[in-house]
Amino acid sequence: METIKYPNISEVEALLSRPAQSLEHLREPALAVIDEVRKNGDNALRSYTQKFDGVSIETFRVSAAEFAEAENLVGEDLKKSISLAAKNIEKFHAAQVSKVEKIETMSGVTCWRKSVGIERVGLYIPGGSAPLFSTVLMLGIPAKIAGCSRIVLCTPPSKSGKIHPAILYAAQLVGVTEIYKVGGIQAIAALTFGTESVPRVDKIFGPGNAYVTAAKQLVSNMGVAIDMPAGPSEVMVLADESCNPAFVAADLLSQAEHGTDSQAVLVTDNENIINAVKLAMYELLQQLARKDIAKISLEKSKLVLVKNAAEMLQVANIYAAEHLIISTKNAEEMAEKVVNAGSVFIGNYSPESAGDYASGTNHALPTAGYARSFSGVSVDSFVRKITFQKLTQEGLKNVGTAVEIMAEAEGLQAHKNAVSLRLI
Amino acid sequence: METIKYPNISEVEALLSRPAQSLEHLREPALAVIDEVRKNGDNALRSYTQKFDGVSIETFRVSAAEFAEAENLVGEDLKKSISLAAKNIEKFHAAQVSKVEKIETMSGVTCWRKSVGIERVGLYIPGGSAPLFSTVLMLGIPAKIAGCSRIVLCTPPSKSGKIHPAILYAAQLVGVTEIYKVGGIQAIAALTFGTESVPRVDKIFGPGNAYVTAAKQLVSNMGVAIDMPAGPSEVMVLADESCNPAFVAADLLSQAEHGTDSQAVLVTDNENIINAVKLAMYELLQQLARKDIAKISLEKSKLVLVKNAAEMLQVANIYAAEHLIISTKNAEEMAEKVVNAGSVFIGNYSPESAGDYASGTNHALPTAGYARSFSGVSVDSFVRKITFQKLTQEGLKNVGTAVEIMAEAEGLQAHKNAVSLRLI
Repeated sequence: METIKYPNISEVEALLSRPAQSLEHLREPALAVIDEVRKNGDNALRSYTQKFDGVSIETFRVSAAEFAEAENLVGEDLKKSISLAAKNIEKFHAAQVSKVEKIETMSGVTCWRKSVGIERVGLYIPGGSAPLFSTVLMLGIPAKIAGCSRIVLCTPPSKSGKIHPAILYAAQLVGVTEIYKVGGIQAIAALTFGTESVPRVDKIFGPGNAYVTAAKQLVSNMGVAIDMPAGPSEVMVLADESCNPAFVAADLLSQAEHGTDSQAVLVTDNENIINAVKLAMYELLQQLARKDIAKISLEKSKLVLVKNAAEMLQVANIYAAEHLIISTKNAEEMAEKVVNAGSVFIGNYSPESAGDYASGTNHALPTAGYARSFSGVSVDSFVRKITFQKLTQEGLKNVGTAVEIMAEAEGLQAHKNAVSLRLI
Repeated sequence: METIKYPNISEVEALLSRPAQSLEHLREPALAVIDEVRKNGDNALRSYTQKFDGVSIETFRVSAAEFAEAENLVGEDLKKSISLAAKNIEKFHAAQVSKVEKIETMSGVTCWRKSVGIERVGLYIPGGSAPLFSTVLMLGIPAKIAGCSRIVLCTPPSKSGKIHPAILYAAQLVGVTEIYKVGGIQAIAALTFGTESVPRVDKIFGPGNAYVTAAKQLVSNMGVAIDMPAGPSEVMVLADESCNPAFVAADLLSQAEHGTDSQAVLVTDNENIINAVKLAMYELLQQLARKDIAKISLEKSKLVLVKNAAEMLQVANIYAAEHLIISTKNAEEMAEKVVNAGSVFIGNYSPESAGDYASGTNHALPTAGYARSFSGVSVDSFVRKITFQKLTQEGLKNVGTAVEIMAEAEGLQAHKNAVSLRLI
């Protein structure tokens, strides 16, 4: 871990720059897979699944029997925990539904917006060592609340052709309409163009490895939308002498265990905190099953010593962390001044883990500095806000002259005519 | 204009497919310009402006004197019209600001979202024959309402090194903070990476030609966000015997005059309407200054005859038009059932022109079928909704066990530890 002492604020962005993640080398191979799936549908999915996942899949769609089996395999404690989390996530996201408000901008000119769920959405859930059923909740619940009519989930099968039961259980609980055993670039291509088995969708959500990320980038120029650009997960902790160094250490480690490319950054105005956190991290690290992963990502992590609370905040706003934990005396007041972050965790009893799983906020958040321009996933991500307007003849009279004059000044005579003709 | 009679609904998507718009051939040349601007900043901007706009620009930033001059050049009528439009747009968009609502998902677990304006936004306004000052209103007003602190506008200079006075006037009126005389790929690159003159921004908005669109696609993978994918403008009109064929014709033509690649589609359940609209279009077309452009785009336009109102609606939802005008008996009821559209215009006195300029709704809308997944520009486009959470020790106890069990089931032990440690 590198310690940076009293950096010049103008240098902070460069000092904390994320490792560059060019996906350019994956462009050609990903395009080849996408093209093949577009042309050959299920047959292409079968051969890629054989090649990349090492399993031969005849029927991609998960059957009712498989769902029933999964329900039996998930333990009661986990089921209860998933239910509790789902309830909180639902409560938080239900409040995001916006009501229609009709605005009469002028007499006789009424305009409004209505949220309409995207008809078909695709949720991608990675396979691999950890079954990310929590991500199923984070994507499936807002999709359901938004009113999406088709909620399609793709996830790669294991070598035995199965999906982890917790993923199936969570998906059924939140109302995913169908699950397909397909992963990687081929899943993204299938969701974009449709195959005999997998329906085409309008927007694709969810995390993935570099191949999936490259494929999502590519298909976002092929008619489908994607949730947001993806990058390695990251946390920044702002801490002063009021923090508990062991808690801070645990939070940094919980980020570090995600993957070798995760970033964890501590910013403090107190050098003792740096030493205490380092010590606590060392101790906690030894007990971790994923300690080898955490060690590698910690090598790139930074401990930043700044002059005061104001500088802590400046650093946080420059870095634009996916997760920002504030463990300071006046944490809430500080949080008010955060302008760039994905999700903010306030005080000593708000670990990132709470938001990752069960407090109610979404864990699909902008990484790599994209918090400067993107929000995390919410019900908004699953709707279009369609605008409507109804003008009476009187209303058109009230607004018409302005339209005519502006259209003429822009050289668009037919735009003007469309009003003039109605005002004769 | 092609007339399609009683199509099978399953074939509608293919029958009304937009002409494919591959920008692949612009990728390499656009990347070269972007790279050059990234490396050589203002010098690169100068040489591209000389090359593409045919003018040598020393100082890119528009001066106070130039703003003052523009103010004098814009006529009083146009100023009044712009003011009226701005007032309506502001009224409609101000209602989009969302309030903070704190949600206690469980006792001691409080979560909320706060809208925070994107700090630096870039608005691109094309040059060319028509000075799109209306787009300055449509992008600048929501940016201001959102609280963006830096609102940067780029637009190409004329051969005499000037910007159209109406653009400068509108920009100053709505609170654009700075304007730079640079257009094309080089402007998009400058907004992405910053140069000595032009600041780097977090998100780029606005229409443009194929080069600008290709550049926006490319930079959206280079750390900056963009508003939405761009395509040619389009309108669909649903009309039954209650419509006024001349109004419908005028609306179709106002779309057709935009550019040779614009699309205008009429859907009706009454063959007489098709004939009457064709006749009216022919007459109105003759009077248009831009009739050569309109003629070309009309060649690709479609007149679709369907069986009944239900089919009209099906076609509209399959096509997902940028602009959807409903001129039918029960237009409002029909509008309720629209699920895919950018903006909907209800009844005989709601021409698209009204929304294009002055009714209050935004005219920056999703084209090319992207209305299936994207909303038009709104205040939402200029904010991030940052989530916050504060747990008390009691709150963490309430949610903690679920977090521990779920983290363990996902194989993320450090995530579990971050809770366990706090609950000792």
